[in-house]
Amino acid sequence: MAALSTRTRAIAGSLTGLAILTGATGIAAAQAAPARTTAVSTPPAVVQTGALSADAALKIADAVRKEAAKQGQRVTVVIVDRSGATRLVLKGDGAGPQTEESARRKAFTAVSFGKATSELAKGVSGDGPTIADIPGTLFLGGGVPVTSGGAPIAGVGVGGAPGGDIDEAIAQAGLKAVAGQLG
Amino acid sequence: MAALSTRTRAIAGSLTGLAILTGATGIAAAQAAPARTTAVSTPPAVVQTGALSADAALKIADAVRKEAAKQGQRVTVVIVDRSGATRLVLKGDGAGPQTEESARRKAFTAVSFGKATSELAKGVSGDGPTIADIPGTLFLGGGVPVTSGGAPIAGVGVGGAPGGDIDEAIAQAGLKAVAGQLG
Amino acid sequence: MAALSTRTRAIAGSLTGLAILTGATGIAAAQAAPARTTAVSTPPAVVQTGALSADAALKIADAVRKEAAKQGQRVTVVIVDRSGATRLVLKGDGAGPQTEESARRKAFTAVSFGKATSELAKGVSGDGPTIADIPGTLFLGGGVPVTSGGAPIAGVGVGGAPGGDIDEAIAQAGLKAVAGQLG
Amino acid sequence: MAALSTRTRAIAGSLTGLAILTGATGIAAAQAAPARTTAVSTPPAVVQTGALSADAALKIADAVRKEAAKQGQRVTVVIVDRSGATRLVLKGDGAGPQTEESARRKAFTAVSFGKATSELAKGVSGDGPTIADIPGTLFLGGGVPVTSGGAPIAGVGVGGAPGGDIDEAIAQAGLKAVAGQLG
Amino acid sequence: MAALSTRTRAIAGSLTGLAILTGATGIAAAQAAPARTTAVSTPPAVVQTGALSADAALKIADAVRKEAAKQGQRVTVVIVDRSGATRLVLKGDGAGPQTEESARRKAFTAVSFGKATSELAKGVSGDGPTIADIPGTLFLGGGVPVTSGGAPIAGVGVGGAPGGDIDEAIAQAGLKAVAGQLG
Amino acid sequence: MAALSTRTRAIAGSLTGLAILTGATGIAAAQAAPARTTAVSTPPAVVQTGALSADAALKIADAVRKEAAKQGQRVTVVIVDRSGATRLVLKGDGAGPQTEESARRKAFTAVSFGKATSELAKGVSGDGPTIADIPGTLFLGGGVPVTSGGAPIAGVGVGGAPGGDIDEAIAQAGLKAVAGQLG
Amino acid sequence: MAALSTRTRAIAGSLTGLAILTGATGIAAAQAAPARTTAVSTPPAVVQTGALSADAALKIADAVRKEAAKQGQRVTVVIVDRSGATRLVLKGDGAGPQTEESARRKAFTAVSFGKATSELAKGVSGDGPTIADIPGTLFLGGGVPVTSGGAPIAGVGVGGAPGGDIDEAIAQAGLKAVAGQLG
Amino acid sequence: MAALSTRTRAIAGSLTGLAILTGATGIAAAQAAPARTTAVSTPPAVVQTGALSADAALKIADAVRKEAAKQGQRVTVVIVDRSGATRLVLKGDGAGPQTEESARRKAFTAVSFGKATSELAKGVSGDGPTIADIPGTLFLGGGVPVTSGGAPIAGVGVGGAPGGDIDEAIAQAGLKAVAGQLG
Repeated sequence: MAALSTRTRAIAGSLTGLAILTGATGIAAAQAAPARTTAVSTPPAVVQTGALSADAALKIADAVRKEAAKQGQRVTVVIVDRSGATRLVLKGDGAGPQTEESARRKAFTAVSFGKATSELAKGVSGDGPTIADIPGTLFLGGGVPVTSGGAPIAGVGVGGAPGGDIDEAIAQAGLKAVAGQLG
Repeated sequence: MAALSTRTRAIAGSLTGLAILTGATGIAAAQAAPARTTAVSTPPAVVQTGALSADAALKIADAVRKEAAKQGQRVTVVIVDRSGATRLVLKGDGAGPQTEESARRKAFTAVSFGKATSELAKGVSGDGPTIADIPGTLFLGGGVPVTSGGAPIAGVGVGGAPGGDIDEAIAQAGLKAVAGQLG
Repeated sequence: MAALSTRTRAIAGSLTGLAILTGATGIAAAQAAPARTTAVSTPPAVVQTGALSADAALKIADAVRKEAAKQGQRVTVVIVDRSGATRLVLKGDGAGPQTEESARRKAFTAVSFGKATSELAKGVSGDGPTIADIPGTLFLGGGVPVTSGGAPIAGVGVGGAPGGDIDEAIAQAGLKAVAGQLG
Repeated sequence: MAALSTRTRAIAGSLTGLAILTGATGIAAAQAAPARTTAVSTPPAVVQTGALSADAALKIADAVRKEAAKQGQRVTVVIVDRSGATRLVLKGDGAGPQTEESARRKAFTAVSFGKATSELAKGVSGDGPTIADIPGTLFLGGGVPVTSGGAPIAGVGVGGAPGGDIDEAIAQAGLKAVAGQLG
Repeated sequence: MAALSTRTRAIAGSLTGLAILTGATGIAAAQAAPARTTAVSTPPAVVQTGALSADAALKIADAVRKEAAKQGQRVTVVIVDRSGATRLVLKGDGAGPQTEESARRKAFTAVSFGKATSELAKGVSGDGPTIADIPGTLFLGGGVPVTSGGAPIAGVGVGGAPGGDIDEAIAQAGLKAVAGQLG
Repeated sequence: MAALSTRTRAIAGSLTGLAILTGATGIAAAQAAPARTTAVSTPPAVVQTGALSADAALKIADAVRKEAAKQGQRVTVVIVDRSGATRLVLKGDGAGPQTEESARRKAFTAVSFGKATSELAKGVSGDGPTIADIPGTLFLGGGVPVTSGGAPIAGVGVGGAPGGDIDEAIAQAGLKAVAGQLG
Repeated sequence: MAALSTRTRAIAGSLTGLAILTGATGIAAAQAAPARTTAVSTPPAVVQTGALSADAALKIADAVRKEAAKQGQRVTVVIVDRSGATRLVLKGDGAGPQTEESARRKAFTAVSFGKATSELAKGVSGDGPTIADIPGTLFLGGGVPVTSGGAPIAGVGVGGAPGGDIDEAIAQAGLKAVAGQLG
Repeated sequence: MAALSTRTRAIAGSLTGLAILTGATGIAAAQAAPARTTAVSTPPAVVQTGALSADAALKIADAVRKEAAKQGQRVTVVIVDRSGATRLVLKGDGAGPQTEESARRKAFTAVSFGKATSELAKGVSGDGPTIADIPGTLFLGGGVPVTSGGAPIAGVGVGGAPGGDIDEAIAQAGLKAVAGQLG
């Protein structure tokens, strides 16, 4: 394996015992789950980040659309990747003008902290500053993280239903469409 | 067909060859009023959305201006359509610099949730996140939805009076100018 | 029919021979095609605007994705409605960071002027100001209008291929997915 | 005093005890027309600026709407005051999504330089920097200044017709609605 | 006087007993002080708005700078006119990076509502939406309105001292520099 | 010393007894520490502001990176100078998309008020407006000022750990890397 | 290998013949280099994207700083990843205020198109629209892509030298610091 | 001198032969004038940057105002420091709405490149990308740098006259007010 480049070797190594793979998935681990400290002498110049494929994004969007129709809700779904960049937006028929941005922020919040926004919302209360003051976030129900290898690789946000619990149920229906395919 | 509302009748008429329009009425329905679930085998490629005409917008603006003058208030009125796009802005003589954006956000909020902002404000309180955290919204009195066929097609926002109740009364006077013409 | 509201009458009229429906679709007609002047004594308070359904948008996105894969291109597709609001965004696997905004602007330009951006680009040249100075526009190939009843109701923009002609071919493949369903 | 313009006479009357107002007329003069230098020993603390009234703005908008309908064009009209703040926006039925910003910039440009944008455009050409590089401006036909006492107090911008000359003709029709009432 | 244009008459009338001048100043009156309703048959096409002169702005800035130096504070002063447009900004030596925007918003708030921000702050509390949600505002002490003829024509905002009361005292010292010259 | 320019003289003077040096450092002193009032007859035209060097910024970033790795945290560090301008940004491997802006705002807040954000947060509570309403600020732990001569010359912000106390500890580890070199 | 998850298998598979690895690196391939079309029956739900590590980014920044010092230039270096998100910013001592944004856009452009901006600039000329109209881009010398596996994973932009060729030489010196470590 | 802190020593050293002072002024030297390379073993952690004092800024603004009045021009003057942050804005009586931003950009351009914008404009022409594409810049006459010790420490921009040469003459008149006081 001497001829392999540093990078190839790292991936090869990941097969011997998932050592680097562990590191790789850890890279994108959520804030709430501290990375295992590793004693790598020389850090790699290239790190691998998992991202939801466009195909998977479309599957989620389609499932969201169907579940929303079933529940008689008009919603928008937004999917962002771990860097916060847009992966998908689908504004449902008749969804309100506020839904694109609310869905986006829920997705952003979920992928940022690696938890559902409904769960995160419990910690956002009381007098004084909270993480809800961080720009780009929204702590209403309807945002769920997409995890792969234990780390958040995307966020799915749904907005438009009269309650965050409904938005979240619809988002979860979306996730189901790719369940078991995320590693 | 006598029992049908005027609007339903019209659409019923259109049904003879335009099934798609049935969906159309639900399309713009407010968040608070879930759409009736329908068992359409193939969704239509084109949906129809109602929008306030420019003529109606001008009538509302003129009525707002007159009512504000009558009440001795200096206000700005903004009308946005269901997509959130501007339909009309009229800054009254002597209205403050904050009135354009406050009126716009009230209009946006009213058309987003399909209710008057004064009514919506009642649900925005307490510790923790609320829908008031959604970008573009403002939950002060003075924003009213324009409904057609039971669904919000526009929002009218008024800002500048010393109290939200006055702003709302002026906005309502604006709506009166097109009452009975919205279906 | 004397008892019908103005609006009901308009829609009723549309059934007799699509007279008003014609007017309605004309409402969204492109800039390049002046609306037929009509001698309506009282303008209606509500106008109907066609919009691409979410279902059709997904079909276009899926067709774009498949065509791009077939051509070995990594692209982003954006669909905006006639108000300029986002209907759909799908960033392809490996598409560059510039593709979301370039696709969006192509879509915006196509729906604004009712023509393909490649065609519009021919008129944007020479010394001095042009319509390319209008904010939000981009006159590179890859933007095509979606027309219904002769009027643009949406714009589809594709960005990411090494040439605008390739982007446009991919966008056209997307349109094919809903051909014959747009009225 | 018969030879004085009506406006000059009115100001002359005010001069009996309000010398400041003399300066006032010059205050809003366009860039192209240098103010008369005055030898005022102590500059006034308050200067008066003329602004188009909301009533006049509505009259212009209504005239624009009618002329556009007559010409079969779908346009948006924007009026801004001398500070650049919005006075009025009216988006016509079926006007494209690009029209609000193009109309606004034309209005801004006209009130900034005190001339019609079509006239200004003649000076914006050639290699190298021009005033068209100044943020907020747009040098396409359709923007006309509203002058009072020889100075620009507002700008009217129209966008949406297939040519700047048509936009300008429509804007001029708007101005006619308040001709003779501006002093 | 029958031959005079509408506008000329209005100004002429202002000389006889300040009737219209009263109206004129009333135009810019604060939200908290409702305009007197007037029974003008035809509204004028041009309204006059008072604005702080550049000379007066410089005098205020200089006085602010001196008072701040005397009190050993490092502050920024911003003056905006009734349309919200910038009239003056002066960042003091060593003033923090947050001071420009905080001073601007205090000035904006004061001219919007016609009262000192410290006074306005008393009404901004409690659970639920308040006027502090209006974009561009800041309800910390340090913003004071400049009034002329009983109406706010500008706002002066000071930011940078460790307390809003100090900022306000410095702003008031600025106002003193033009006291008695505002009409 | 007669041949020295005004500016050179000022610096020379600073050596004789640190008189100007005192003034110079005082220039950038935090809000909480009022500047000593000085009786300088003619204020200097040029004032000197200390700024963290790029070399020092890199040292801090490297130390932050190492400490974060040691603690198993994925964070972003941002350093801004006293004018609020960016000096350095380093997004750690796997840091969430929200970390750049949260780190930036913590840095901005720390250099604005000259104290750690954790300390400042104690004063941001209760009903009504607070300094947390000032744009650009964030009062979560993780922002620390860099002081030189008793005045804040930069802010270091860290974001991404599950708690502000951890972020702050990591930021402090960064500061240690330049301890004793700041004067 | 049956026990491996889909995702693990994909990576494992990449070792047997680099089939998926080829696909993986291809994912981020530049626009100019079309992806090889693959006949994968079911697209993966998770795709891997390479990113420059924070450690490598710091090494590049340090090398840029040293080369700039050697050449006597004051520059800013910005590194963005393939999603366009910031990886690193380092503003050099005395670098002008325009350098952060110019460096950022050069980096963005280089990673978007997978080539050095100096090379890309050759194609941006002539009358009419060009890719230089795409938002976020800048086609001045000084931006270079970081490639791994033949695909761009980051862009390095340098701004501040009096010529783009100097900026580029400095950027290249930065790249040298990680040469041979990128795979 | 052993007891002096590192920072104090650097300044002290600057007196013995201006070695560090040279370095200090060089820090802010314009792009066009490459810094002298120095063989400093350990770079300092704190660098000193000169900035125009608020007092000097006011003097410039006052001189600009007077010269503009003398020439019968209505202009806005903006002064920014070397970081691009605002030092002063003064909008002249009757200056157009475009003048604040045009003046700001001229000032920004002048301090960025260390030359008058009229001089810089000569190099901005021809086909293809130029430095005029850098965000925040404007290459119209009226921007002049303020230099101290041979380096630009601020930019003064004037906008509003009918020609860039007039704007520049007015800006130069402003600079004269502090001539000989800048070191």
